[in-house]
Amino acid sequence: MRLSVLFALFLLLLPCPSFAKDTGAVQTPEKVFNAQSYMLDNGLQVVVVENHRAPVVTHMIWYRVGAAEEQPGKSGMAHFMEHLMFKGQTSEAFGDIAPGDFSKIVRSLGGKDNAFTSQDYTAYYQSVASDQLETVMTMEAGRMRGMSPPADEVVSENKVILEERRQRTDNDPRAQMDEQLNAALFVNHPYGIPVIGWLHEMEGLTWDDEKAFYDLWYEPNNAILVVSGDVTGPEVLALAQKTYGKIPSAKVPERIRTVSPPFVAQMSVTLAHSSIREPSFQRGYRVPSARQNKQDSLALEVLEEIMGGGATSRLYKDLVVEGKVASSISISYSGNAWDDATVWIAGVPAEGNVLQDVEAAVDDELRKLIAEGVRADELKDAVTRMQADAIYARDSLSGPAMTIGYGLITGSTLDDIEYWPRDIEMVSADQVQDVAKRFLNPDAPAKIPPVTGYLLPKEGGDDQGLDAMGGASEMQGEIR
Amino acid sequence: MRLSVLFALFLLLLPCPSFAKDTGAVQTPEKVFNAQSYMLDNGLQVVVVENHRAPVVTHMIWYRVGAAEEQPGKSGMAHFMEHLMFKGQTSEAFGDIAPGDFSKIVRSLGGKDNAFTSQDYTAYYQSVASDQLETVMTMEAGRMRGMSPPADEVVSENKVILEERRQRTDNDPRAQMDEQLNAALFVNHPYGIPVIGWLHEMEGLTWDDEKAFYDLWYEPNNAILVVSGDVTGPEVLALAQKTYGKIPSAKVPERIRTVSPPFVAQMSVTLAHSSIREPSFQRGYRVPSARQNKQDSLALEVLEEIMGGGATSRLYKDLVVEGKVASSISISYSGNAWDDATVWIAGVPAEGNVLQDVEAAVDDELRKLIAEGVRADELKDAVTRMQADAIYARDSLSGPAMTIGYGLITGSTLDDIEYWPRDIEMVSADQVQDVAKRFLNPDAPAKIPPVTGYLLPKEGGDDQGLDAMGGASEMQGEIR
Repeated sequence: MRLSVLFALFLLLLPCPSFAKDTGAVQTPEKVFNAQSYMLDNGLQVVVVENHRAPVVTHMIWYRVGAAEEQPGKSGMAHFMEHLMFKGQTSEAFGDIAPGDFSKIVRSLGGKDNAFTSQDYTAYYQSVASDQLETVMTMEAGRMRGMSPPADEVVSENKVILEERRQRTDNDPRAQMDEQLNAALFVNHPYGIPVIGWLHEMEGLTWDDEKAFYDLWYEPNNAILVVSGDVTGPEVLALAQKTYGKIPSAKVPERIRTVSPPFVAQMSVTLAHSSIREPSFQRGYRVPSARQNKQDSLALEVLEEIMGGGATSRLYKDLVVEGKVASSISISYSGNAWDDATVWIAGVPAEGNVLQDVEAAVDDELRKLIAEGVRADELKDAVTRMQADAIYARDSLSGPAMTIGYGLITGSTLDDIEYWPRDIEMVSADQVQDVAKRFLNPDAPAKIPPVTGYLLPKEGGDDQGLDAMGGASEMQGEIR
Repeated sequence: MRLSVLFALFLLLLPCPSFAKDTGAVQTPEKVFNAQSYMLDNGLQVVVVENHRAPVVTHMIWYRVGAAEEQPGKSGMAHFMEHLMFKGQTSEAFGDIAPGDFSKIVRSLGGKDNAFTSQDYTAYYQSVASDQLETVMTMEAGRMRGMSPPADEVVSENKVILEERRQRTDNDPRAQMDEQLNAALFVNHPYGIPVIGWLHEMEGLTWDDEKAFYDLWYEPNNAILVVSGDVTGPEVLALAQKTYGKIPSAKVPERIRTVSPPFVAQMSVTLAHSSIREPSFQRGYRVPSARQNKQDSLALEVLEEIMGGGATSRLYKDLVVEGKVASSISISYSGNAWDDATVWIAGVPAEGNVLQDVEAAVDDELRKLIAEGVRADELKDAVTRMQADAIYARDSLSGPAMTIGYGLITGSTLDDIEYWPRDIEMVSADQVQDVAKRFLNPDAPAKIPPVTGYLLPKEGGDDQGLDAMGGASEMQGEIR
């Protein structure tokens, strides 16, 4: 029932609105969201974005814990915990909710709720009429420390996550490929382990494991509350104090994550499967996240737009429209990660071409970018498009809460998020050229070289370990 | 100074002597070593092989702990501990030895000593005149629980292991390749982490880490003492009681090792480097160890011999001599591992051939083996050769202690080791065919598919991350 952000890192472009610009003139930069931020005494950060166009509100709580915090051999714990958070809570202060009733209550209020898990965070949210905010806040506060799922619910929910894995990964060659590519790209780092977990480890997860994990990480001082909609900051603050404010802060461990070693050889992963219709490749590079290097991350966002943003982008124009080497080509980057982020380039050869042709053409484009940089008009157009693309996010109900949550929970500051349109406009052509050179250079691989996956059609024959049905690939861009 | 068994698993053929056989006649199987085995009250197993041809003795202590017991982020701990075991010990019961003096004392007795570390075990040994056995036993007992290296020794020895890694791995493209291949073949399993450690993790190792590791695992009930040479069982037992017997047993944790997930795609690793003169490939398969499946392991030993044992082996005859596809070809297997063992097949193309030709020819040989099995005469010749090859080990001073130690410490019983010549002779042609089919089938990969590494020559250019000198490859077969 509950779905997870397994590859949200690849998916999420930081959606932020732009402004009508007074070109050239110096002006005080305007904030995107005008969010209000508070800190409760127990360490819970509370961020509010007012939007009074409709009497609705989105209430999200983000925990600074994800799959990357799991112990070795216990993969899937964070995501399993997310599921268990709907399976029964007991609290003197906030009341009891029977297993399965959390979402029912939200629906009975006319709202909807969900949750998702990534390597770096776990988030829960409800969208309800604004006069119901206190109700859902009370419920959410109640499960911050009050989870007590009955044993049979734990067992049955374990079956649910196992089935989720079978459906989404084990029956899907693309998802299998993604897992192996991540394992190859993130050797000795938790990002190499899938968020959903390895099947054989998921089978062994117990409530004792989950309870220990929950007690360690689910604390007010390890969470961020984001509320957007038809409320005011002071109202939300008062409600948060009345609910979450009752929960004492606790000692939360530091995040300690193993670090990948440098490598010199290039890894590749190849899978031939009967459900694959046309060959494709995807190549992943490790690059800085926004937390690790804000300037590099901004430059990579611009690079992504120039190289892959729509019909006028370099890769599309040169490889698909003019070169006719590829029938499709894409590049993706998101800086929302605690540790290294990734750039993925993927392509499908046009008729009469093979994978190697597309890969060579991509490398030539990268070489051109590295040698010649980007033109001023290209840069300006890209930034304008990015700012324009982003403007819509502010107008949706949950968009601002999502954007702010993703940013804050992965280590950006509120100012990084608020002033993103200004910052993205400050990225220079040199910076774009420089990140290409340092991280995407085909002739001088980075300390951790890229990995490449090849998916190939297979005529008849057995498909080892996969249900021959195959299945659609929703994993890569999935969010809930 | 102290060297390590980094890839001993690949190297070690269990060396056991054969006997003049009364073909066909039923006979009581004879033991190879006629070893005597005792158990001290504190749980230390004591194994003695008498050999009175010269007044010398080899004294080895094997600890059931290796790199695979290290915590995440602390790779290299087991090997660092091995180094520190020479850096100063204090003991009321056994006396003090100053840093660096352990080996000096052994040398002053006319003996020699050394130590080695693998994923599964750490071993220390001395070869001395037999009347010095008590001396070295007392010294070794003293460092089972009495290590107290001064802080400056810990710091300087950390530099030694870092230099060891730089010299042997970071300057050697073949060793780098081996590391990446193991990482690809052992995803989510500690065997994917090098015994010597990742450089950035080795740099962070402290005495606190090492001490905790040492206190957890270096206990008499987690060790096996093997003594071979000019001594009797009762003499060794009495000395062992007098020395090691003073050390109380302690609670030792169970070995808990993460398990690799099944995969469907095939991984490969490619490295072009200026120090490489000719292209080569190596392909690694995960197969049962002797501890996991004794019969499969025996069959794999026979398969190895039939396919790769010398000039009459199938691979050599068909690919090198007759087919002229390869200029060299090899296959290696050792069952001495706690978890999965490996089969590695490696080859170099003959002039006029490319790597793909050799790989295809290897696959054809495997298909032939799977389809047609092995001939009775081939099987008999192979077993006879294996028994004959092994006979020499018994006659060396340290051979028996090594063979017994490797076997026992990786979970074989003394009987498995003693009756190996009988057991290997019982392997049937069907068994050989069957293990080929289950583990080495090119048309139906196992649950964990093989990984392949390609080393390629590189004309000029930069060698990323490697000293351009390259270096000899001693890693794969290194033992001390």
